[in-house]
Parts: sequence; structure tokens; C-alpha cells
Amino acid sequence: MDGVLADVYSQFIAYHERDFGERLVIRDLDGRPEFDAFPKGRVHVNSKGFFRTAPVILNSREVLQRLNRTYRIFVVSAAMEFPQSLSEKQEWLNEHFPFIGWQQVVFCGTKDIIDADVMIDDHLKNLDRFKGDTFLFSQPHNHGHAGTRHRRVSTWAEIEQILL
Amino acid sequence: MDGVLADVYSQFIAYHERDFGERLVIRDLDGRPEFDAFPKGRVHVNSKGFFRTAPVILNSREVLQRLNRTYRIFVVSAAMEFPQSLSEKQEWLNEHFPFIGWQQVVFCGTKDIIDADVMIDDHLKNLDRFKGDTFLFSQPHNHGHAGTRHRRVSTWAEIEQILL
Repeated sequence: MDGVLADVYSQFIAYHERDFGERLVIRDLDGRPEFDAFPKGRVHVNSKGFFRTAPVILNSREVLQRLNRTYRIFVVSAAMEFPQSLSEKQEWLNEHFPFIGWQQVVFCGTKDIIDADVMIDDHLKNLDRFKGDTFLFSQPHNHGHAGTRHRRVSTWAEIEQILL
Repeated sequence: MDGVLADVYSQFIAYHERDFGERLVIRDLDGRPEFDAFPKGRVHVNSKGFFRTAPVILNSREVLQRLNRTYRIFVVSAAMEFPQSLSEKQEWLNEHFPFIGWQQVVFCGTKDIIDADVMIDDHLKNLDRFKGDTFLFSQPHNHGHAGTRHRRVSTWAEIEQILL
């Protein structure tokens, strides 16, 4: 969800600017873990509204809606670390992805309990333990860390081209 | 979680008595689906506090704590159908099962996305689709519906004897 459907980088940058008065440039964050790039990141993800007001990643809604007609889609979010995020994430999904039913949503602590055929994720730790096909969705923190097993995708248009 | 760790039947019976002035007897509910046995059940599960104040099933805490030392335990709850239940279930787990970390909790809509070796559940629909070993935890609604594939267990003491 975060970094694949929800544009958390835009949120981090906005919150950082609010607190420090400087506007970070995405390119400068390449290859750095999120909480290294954003020193107050942990405070921000735990603050009310952070997940609820995140922008939607370009084309993710449209492509996921089309994938949803052909594939059995699950939105799986490692949300348990941030307790107050659960209801925000639920509301966010209902608002922006109304075609995803409650049967298709999973909030977990770790994704290695998930059994599926394909995983699209921005974190190597999630993809590395997954048994099926893996797509690494480009985000600054995974820049230069593709590994060899995962197929890198940078846009939802690419995902559509591959899967549909 | 419900019907295995959380004693939702006691809650249903208490809420039913509060609304209808009659105290139902568990034995009379054998073999009947929950929302057939409790006509206002759907209203009750959607009312504030229902999950938060559910009693803990006998010995589940003690046995799960011992299992947690030997097995990699996940508490998986089909919670997505009842949106307000997520935070209540989270708080309930933190209170009664503090040894279960957030990494070990999964809230989902359907459990057929779960990959594990053993599942303990009171609902056949969850066990039927599971690939690993299955234990049917006795509850009135599954009385007489064991199927052939699942091993029926009626207490946590039994589970401990089998798994430890």
C-alpha cells in the first residue's frame, strides 16, 4: 500500500517542509532508507492524518481497477506497527479504491505469512521472503538495491503492460 | 481470534439477554449459524465495545504463551467485515495477550491468503481452504459439522497436549 498505492514520499516531504522549512528533492534521497532520509519520519507516520491524507500514486487506481477484473487482488499493508494507521488506511482505501472490497484487504505485521502468486512491493525485505513472482516498485529508498531476483517497475503503466 | 481466543458466544448471550430479557442456553444453539442463533447478532458485532469487552476463552492465554515459545505464532482475524472492530481487537490483544507482538497479528477479510503450517479455527470455511494441518475448535455453530479432514479440539488443554 505505502509506496505502491499511497504516495508516502510526498507526505514525508510535506511534513518535513512544515517542520524544518526546507523542501527536500527526491533525487537527493535515492538509496537512503526512509527514516534516514526523513529524521522526523517516525514521528510523522505516528501522527494523526499522515496516512489518511496521503496522495494516490499516479495511475495506481486506474490500473488496479483494470487488474481487479482479471486477477484476484489483495491489498496487503504492513500496518500493525502503527496502531492508529489501521482506521486511516481503511478509510483511505474506501475513498480512493472503492472497488476493493473488505474481503480483499489485509493488515499485517510481516508479509511472509502471505500466500499469493504475484507481489508488487517497494521493500526488498517483503519481496525476498515471498515465494511467487516479485515486482520491486521503484521508490527512492530502494534505488540501486534491486537484487537479482525481482523485476523492477517504476510506473503503474509498466505493471499494466506486463500483467494485462 | 473470535471463537478461539475471544469468547464471542458469552458476548452474544449477554447482549441478547440485555435486548430480549431472555438468557439463551448454549446447548440450544448447537448446530445453528451464529446469526441464526442470535437474531440481533449483526447489530451487536457492529456496536461499540462488543469485541473490546469479550471474555478470554479458558486457558487460551496460558497455552498460547507456551506455544509462542516453540512455534512462530500468528493471530489471524477476519476483522475487515467490521471496520470499527480493528482498533478494539488490537487493544483487546494488547491487554490479554501482551506477549503477541504486532509482527504476529493479521487482520484480513478472508483467510485463504494465509500461508502457515497449522490453523486453529472455529469456522469450516476457513479450514477447508487451508493447505496445512487443521484444527476445528468446537463452538456451538460448528456442532455436528466437523467434516472429515479437520481434527476437532474442544479445549486449549487438548491443543497443548497435541502440539507440545
